[in-house]
Amino acid sequence: MKTPEKYKQSLRQMRPNIYKFGELIEDVTTHPATRWTVEGHAQMYALQQDPKYQELVTTTSSLIAERIFRHLSILKSPEDLYAASKQKRLMFNLTGTCTGALCAGWNAINSMWATTFDMDKELGTDYHIRLKEWLITAQKRAITISGALTDPKGDRSLPPSQQEDPDMNLRIMEQREDGIIVRGAKIMICGVAAANEIFVLPGSGYREPERDWAISFVIPRDIEGLTIVETRHPNDTREAEEGFDTPVKIGGITQAFLFFEDVFVPYERVFMCGEFNYSLSAVMNFIAPYRATIGACVAGQGDVMIGASILMARANGLSERVFAQKLIQMSINNETTFGMGIASAAMGTQHPSGLWQCDQLLANVTKVHVATYPYQSKLLAQDIGGGIVETGCMPSYKDFTNPKYGHLVQKYLKARASAEARTRAARLVEWLTVGAGIPGCMHGGGSPEGAKLVIRATTDFERCIGLAQRLAGIEEEIPPIAKK
Amino acid sequence: MKTPEKYKQSLRQMRPNIYKFGELIEDVTTHPATRWTVEGHAQMYALQQDPKYQELVTTTSSLIAERIFRHLSILKSPEDLYAASKQKRLMFNLTGTCTGALCAGWNAINSMWATTFDMDKELGTDYHIRLKEWLITAQKRAITISGALTDPKGDRSLPPSQQEDPDMNLRIMEQREDGIIVRGAKIMICGVAAANEIFVLPGSGYREPERDWAISFVIPRDIEGLTIVETRHPNDTREAEEGFDTPVKIGGITQAFLFFEDVFVPYERVFMCGEFNYSLSAVMNFIAPYRATIGACVAGQGDVMIGASILMARANGLSERVFAQKLIQMSINNETTFGMGIASAAMGTQHPSGLWQCDQLLANVTKVHVATYPYQSKLLAQDIGGGIVETGCMPSYKDFTNPKYGHLVQKYLKARASAEARTRAARLVEWLTVGAGIPGCMHGGGSPEGAKLVIRATTDFERCIGLAQRLAGIEEEIPPIAKK
Amino acid sequence: MKTPEKYKQSLRQMRPNIYKFGELIEDVTTHPATRWTVEGHAQMYALQQDPKYQELVTTTSSLIAERIFRHLSILKSPEDLYAASKQKRLMFNLTGTCTGALCAGWNAINSMWATTFDMDKELGTDYHIRLKEWLITAQKRAITISGALTDPKGDRSLPPSQQEDPDMNLRIMEQREDGIIVRGAKIMICGVAAANEIFVLPGSGYREPERDWAISFVIPRDIEGLTIVETRHPNDTREAEEGFDTPVKIGGITQAFLFFEDVFVPYERVFMCGEFNYSLSAVMNFIAPYRATIGACVAGQGDVMIGASILMARANGLSERVFAQKLIQMSINNETTFGMGIASAAMGTQHPSGLWQCDQLLANVTKVHVATYPYQSKLLAQDIGGGIVETGCMPSYKDFTNPKYGHLVQKYLKARASAEARTRAARLVEWLTVGAGIPGCMHGGGSPEGAKLVIRATTDFERCIGLAQRLAGIEEEIPPIAKK
Amino acid sequence: MKTPEKYKQSLRQMRPNIYKFGELIEDVTTHPATRWTVEGHAQMYALQQDPKYQELVTTTSSLIAERIFRHLSILKSPEDLYAASKQKRLMFNLTGTCTGALCAGWNAINSMWATTFDMDKELGTDYHIRLKEWLITAQKRAITISGALTDPKGDRSLPPSQQEDPDMNLRIMEQREDGIIVRGAKIMICGVAAANEIFVLPGSGYREPERDWAISFVIPRDIEGLTIVETRHPNDTREAEEGFDTPVKIGGITQAFLFFEDVFVPYERVFMCGEFNYSLSAVMNFIAPYRATIGACVAGQGDVMIGASILMARANGLSERVFAQKLIQMSINNETTFGMGIASAAMGTQHPSGLWQCDQLLANVTKVHVATYPYQSKLLAQDIGGGIVETGCMPSYKDFTNPKYGHLVQKYLKARASAEARTRAARLVEWLTVGAGIPGCMHGGGSPEGAKLVIRATTDFERCIGLAQRLAGIEEEIPPIAKK
Repeated sequence: MKTPEKYKQSLRQMRPNIYKFGELIEDVTTHPATRWTVEGHAQMYALQQDPKYQELVTTTSSLIAERIFRHLSILKSPEDLYAASKQKRLMFNLTGTCTGALCAGWNAINSMWATTFDMDKELGTDYHIRLKEWLITAQKRAITISGALTDPKGDRSLPPSQQEDPDMNLRIMEQREDGIIVRGAKIMICGVAAANEIFVLPGSGYREPERDWAISFVIPRDIEGLTIVETRHPNDTREAEEGFDTPVKIGGITQAFLFFEDVFVPYERVFMCGEFNYSLSAVMNFIAPYRATIGACVAGQGDVMIGASILMARANGLSERVFAQKLIQMSINNETTFGMGIASAAMGTQHPSGLWQCDQLLANVTKVHVATYPYQSKLLAQDIGGGIVETGCMPSYKDFTNPKYGHLVQKYLKARASAEARTRAARLVEWLTVGAGIPGCMHGGGSPEGAKLVIRATTDFERCIGLAQRLAGIEEEIPPIAKK
Repeated sequence: MKTPEKYKQSLRQMRPNIYKFGELIEDVTTHPATRWTVEGHAQMYALQQDPKYQELVTTTSSLIAERIFRHLSILKSPEDLYAASKQKRLMFNLTGTCTGALCAGWNAINSMWATTFDMDKELGTDYHIRLKEWLITAQKRAITISGALTDPKGDRSLPPSQQEDPDMNLRIMEQREDGIIVRGAKIMICGVAAANEIFVLPGSGYREPERDWAISFVIPRDIEGLTIVETRHPNDTREAEEGFDTPVKIGGITQAFLFFEDVFVPYERVFMCGEFNYSLSAVMNFIAPYRATIGACVAGQGDVMIGASILMARANGLSERVFAQKLIQMSINNETTFGMGIASAAMGTQHPSGLWQCDQLLANVTKVHVATYPYQSKLLAQDIGGGIVETGCMPSYKDFTNPKYGHLVQKYLKARASAEARTRAARLVEWLTVGAGIPGCMHGGGSPEGAKLVIRATTDFERCIGLAQRLAGIEEEIPPIAKK
Repeated sequence: MKTPEKYKQSLRQMRPNIYKFGELIEDVTTHPATRWTVEGHAQMYALQQDPKYQELVTTTSSLIAERIFRHLSILKSPEDLYAASKQKRLMFNLTGTCTGALCAGWNAINSMWATTFDMDKELGTDYHIRLKEWLITAQKRAITISGALTDPKGDRSLPPSQQEDPDMNLRIMEQREDGIIVRGAKIMICGVAAANEIFVLPGSGYREPERDWAISFVIPRDIEGLTIVETRHPNDTREAEEGFDTPVKIGGITQAFLFFEDVFVPYERVFMCGEFNYSLSAVMNFIAPYRATIGACVAGQGDVMIGASILMARANGLSERVFAQKLIQMSINNETTFGMGIASAAMGTQHPSGLWQCDQLLANVTKVHVATYPYQSKLLAQDIGGGIVETGCMPSYKDFTNPKYGHLVQKYLKARASAEARTRAARLVEWLTVGAGIPGCMHGGGSPEGAKLVIRATTDFERCIGLAQRLAGIEEEIPPIAKK
Repeated sequence: MKTPEKYKQSLRQMRPNIYKFGELIEDVTTHPATRWTVEGHAQMYALQQDPKYQELVTTTSSLIAERIFRHLSILKSPEDLYAASKQKRLMFNLTGTCTGALCAGWNAINSMWATTFDMDKELGTDYHIRLKEWLITAQKRAITISGALTDPKGDRSLPPSQQEDPDMNLRIMEQREDGIIVRGAKIMICGVAAANEIFVLPGSGYREPERDWAISFVIPRDIEGLTIVETRHPNDTREAEEGFDTPVKIGGITQAFLFFEDVFVPYERVFMCGEFNYSLSAVMNFIAPYRATIGACVAGQGDVMIGASILMARANGLSERVFAQKLIQMSINNETTFGMGIASAAMGTQHPSGLWQCDQLLANVTKVHVATYPYQSKLLAQDIGGGIVETGCMPSYKDFTNPKYGHLVQKYLKARASAEARTRAARLVEWLTVGAGIPGCMHGGGSPEGAKLVIRATTDFERCIGLAQRLAGIEEEIPPIAKK
């Protein structure tokens, strides 16, 4: 199976089309803006060689009689979902942050697995077959894939078809004989710099007037007409600096803006093309497993926060026993987001396509917790670590090593641990809590408010009313008040 | 299978040995202090006749080739645990409160299933065989069983063997040829008035000096030498009143003090007798599934709180849409305690005895949430319902129906709904939040602090430290600070 | 000044017109439904004789050159408000609960002090003079006064003038030469059984069609045509029982429904009569000091919860040091609700009538906290105290003293403290958290949602927008989106 | 009075002794690492010319018969503290962040005002006179002053006198005839780059062996022997970039490490020199007003967060009405930290020196809230603003203006507002929540755990116990359990 080195080579072979700070990134595996995320993703390729993790990061394909990377598999049972959760937690453990090209793309494939199955069955299309064929090659090539959902959207009060600029949501400009021309953008897309391909999903809730916006396809990252701009993240310029002010060199998160200037996509890579009625299904199939398993991601980062907090306590000369209640709370936070995702999988159901569908209610409750619990853990990490961790309030590495006064910096940063060890631990807490390691928990996979809408729609309030009425012995009907 | 009527008959046939308010309760099925809990338990016997719930409340025995009530089964798979959770949620849905004789006894049997298996294997005893034989008859008799764990304990700073009064924890007074004599008490035991038998577990953490305290057995509720006093619960005198100030007549919770004055238990009903080394296992095997599934109990009551809140809103003339955010939060609260229990089952492991053991870490996180989330739901129910629900601030039923001024009470309690329907709904919220319906979420199945100790013991902090150290590139070892 | 005994005598002299459980209460000072609240109020009269508290519960009148009880004074400075807060906290300290006839009436007088001043000035009425004259006699008579605001309201979606039954809000039926006839009801009124008089305020937001509903007046509690029904509160039947199941005998809360069946009120006691434009002012002037000082009330009860928690810990054999974090949190909760009320007074302004008006924004933030913090303290008290305190899960006093098995109850309730002391402490926690001691924090003085509306109205959002715009250097105007 | 320009000139006249990134900062008023904080401080000098704010930022000196800047005044009444709170809130409103040289130095002067008064009275020293004389010149010179408390501390488990390296806490090396020589460091000191002088306080809890560490003095920022290194803060390199990725150019926070290499301080500037018994008082006198007024600081930043959130909502095309509950919560958060500080001042007492001393209990409760509420506001700001604000997930200014693809960036960042306005608003939220604007709420002025220790020490638990005992009628004494 593909090795880390081969993976990096595959990235180097692509056409450079990623920019940051006004410059073209010639080689994503060495450029400071992208190399750390590439290193993070590369770790996954190394894990398949490690007997301890082999079983977790690979699985047997349901399509070809081969061992494949798990992030390219179709999720067909609760156990597949548990493994996905565990793998996501592990990747956060090992990289400290998001490995986006092993995540949303995977979920997107699975979402379209079910949606294309339904379309083919109900509309007589051949999308499911196309997807299957492409997936077989993807599994064989052992590629990484970003998933692209979020459109720029423009004015949120208007649907795509009524935007002043119709490009504010990605759309079909032309249907040719051999494929389609698309224009628009997808924004805030994780892991693009580390991805071989990009899987595109439509937005949700499209209706008849949004026919031209209902599209799904997969493309090589370096396809003609696609311009990629990597966005800023906290402290990103430090990533180009020498030293340990960016403490983590084996992981990094990137989030890109993708500009499609009339990109041609051949039909064998197109999985939805105008079927607006299925855009909601495509999105709902995506969010259930995504919101379920993201609970494991943040638990994985939470594990690191626990470790970093204990290191800081020890480095300061304090026993972690002093902070027992806080560390227990951090563990509770981790297990709650992790566990709720597991529950969502356990309570799922099987789609006729074979896909295991997570329980929507539990998945969306998970998402709401993902928007709260990890933030409490961050505060606890800052609380335990003391003032220097809170905003990374220490002199820079350049000052730390300055020939004139570096010895003073080091003299006074020393505590129970050496100045360097303590500084590295403190920079790690900073990186995790207000630095480049923070993932987008709040809005990643949709906002908590969006999740609450799903919770509202999937909670059986009428059943609850019936229970109460029966218990209280109320025979009179008390109808809801009509909307004005 | 046993019908509700046969179940009540079985209770009526027992020797009266339950007291409350200084009086002996002659018939638990009609006395106001116990009849509502009996009605609650009886509902379960009715459900087996209902095609909708049959599958849930019964299962196929792993011991006899018969359909049995689920609350007498051995839990052998995650699915068994999911069903247990769902049944517990359902029983709270239907009774509004705890049905104690379908709950802790069940967990106690399962706990001892594994512990006796280990004892027999390691010590050459025959406890597991005894338990199996008794369980077969229990399944055939379709009985209800309370589980008794909590000892009075006396001074918490001293172990049982050092208490001034050695009876503060239930203990063996004498080992006879045919059985044992036990003395002491078990307190705050749920569902005793509705139970046919009582399953006793030892306390935890017993050591060599506590040999005589390490006991487990099962007894008929009316055994000679056992005196039972039912404790007070909020508003309990209302249960003897006419009318709807106690709004629920199909469910009720009881918690009893059991006094053992040299009770004789024959060996075929004894499952631990001095093996202090196994007391911890007995308790740990109990708490994992108990703390996991209690999340479903409180979710079941939470469902009723949602319904009661909506009824109140409508009765007051307000649309429940106004309270959407609060109702969503109540749903989140329900699904979180429910889901965490499911996750604990899903992440469990199989014991050599066949028992499916829930994940301790997740089970104990569930317990911590059980001590918080339902209380927020109660506040929300009080918030939505308005002033009259908060403390049940309405005239009594006697005033409601008073010939002189009852018409005034009714005139002014009417809102959008009739005075009676509104009052019943308000009394239901009162009953659920500060009345007789409140179960002991906080300390039931152990305190949240006890759960946190387990969380501390089962969280792999060292692994977290290793992750952080690796990510931050810290090569120096930073050892923990030694205890003084 | 008036003594406790004289105070009780004044209550005994009134016409019996209070009912509970279908019966007329002949003497409120001895009937179990009302005697505990009378005892609570009587404590205040005793305090004036205590050098430690004299300064607090009395003050110098601004109307007559005499020392008067503080609860009859006009609040003219921040310091007056601080004293009011401290007195309310003290009364909760000493009674464990609400002394309603020293509270809302006081606030109502103060509210109308300003509102009548404005009316007289703007409309040429003589309400302020009437109020002043009545207040002088009230100060001299040293009476207790309940304040009555809440109307039954009927269907909340309709204003008073459009209710099917116009009596759902208290209203003027007739204006005679010498006074007015009023009909309707006021509900959930605290302290009526301990009050000499009742001060009535109008509802808020009345408009032209609600002219007949805009009324304020003060009446003797035993006025002709007024029928009073005391509502239930948790565990209220225990108050008629012997023993300590109701642990507190020096305080109690009552909340009454008042039915006005064409009551005649002479004009010298009428302070608003149709001036609907001033109903909002009357209510706003009421809520600011009420919501500010209620933070002190719940802090006062919180003090008792702290003490009761420590007593329970010690009685159980545990050091309170184990619970240090929880006790600190309880203190934080107390000081937050107390402190926010103080801040509201400190940031207040002077009304031309001399009244010191609390800051509305801070007062309403206080109210929101009153609906949350005390509930956390209750949970902590239940957490610390253990299982027996949670629902008062102990045998009744009748069982405790039963000649047959009372010795067993006592034997096993003993821990580090005696059975009686431990039971009393546990019953106190029960009484404070789910028993008869719980005041209506959530909706008392209006609901938290109502408070949030005031917060919304009094927060200067436009100023905040300007600050952000200036800081970000945004020159473009970004106008709000118009309501559809 | 001093103008902004004169203030900047005074900074330019000082010896350059501040470093960052290994380089000496020649002119703090123009160097990108320090210029924004200088601009922030300069705003205060401009306010005295603004009739709207004049009264707030200046006051009449109690020492000289002149109008002085308020940040150089002695706080002698609650009203002085209210004004201090309001000024701090205002400065956060106007700069978006901390103006450190108008804050901790001010509190330090006030702290030593009382402590030196006590020392002179009790020890016959002349520290108070020295302080007074220096303060008169400071008021006349209208300088800015940083306050320096935090020592590096080394191993937290050891007191200063037992550290391996005695320099880990600032100490006296030598007492000369005309002054003292000090060595060591002070770290994480706010506002140094914008300060004319630095006021040094000792650490707390010093005993006899720490005699040489008990020091307080004031020095010019550019004194010989003092080397200053500015620490990193989030996104600090952006401050040297062109454009609006650092959106705020009228405010900035700096936190410095100060290295004292045998610095000489003349006695007229020394206010404590070995009096270890007074170090606790110096610190306690500091923390009460500091922790009280810091509640206003974070409220001031919270005001900006509210404004920025509304701007983002509007820019996205959403009405802020959708977010009403969240904006109300943000207002509650602001007013709670602000109000608690006000309450602490209102409940204060007067020291014989004239100093108004805030209530310690309320001040420390404020500090605990400062470590929680603002973080919730940050989350709400990120929640309302959407994905792009969460981590500032937008292309850089260089990309925004790139000639090749900048038009695409701008096309797709446009929503209801222009791309630039929306980006600026989003960058402001980023700056406030994970960027350079975040102050050290958690540990600034001491950690929340430290505050809890003071809360524990100042809560009268014994009184609470007495209240509970009296209410429950417990006559038996239940003593505390002795420490082992």
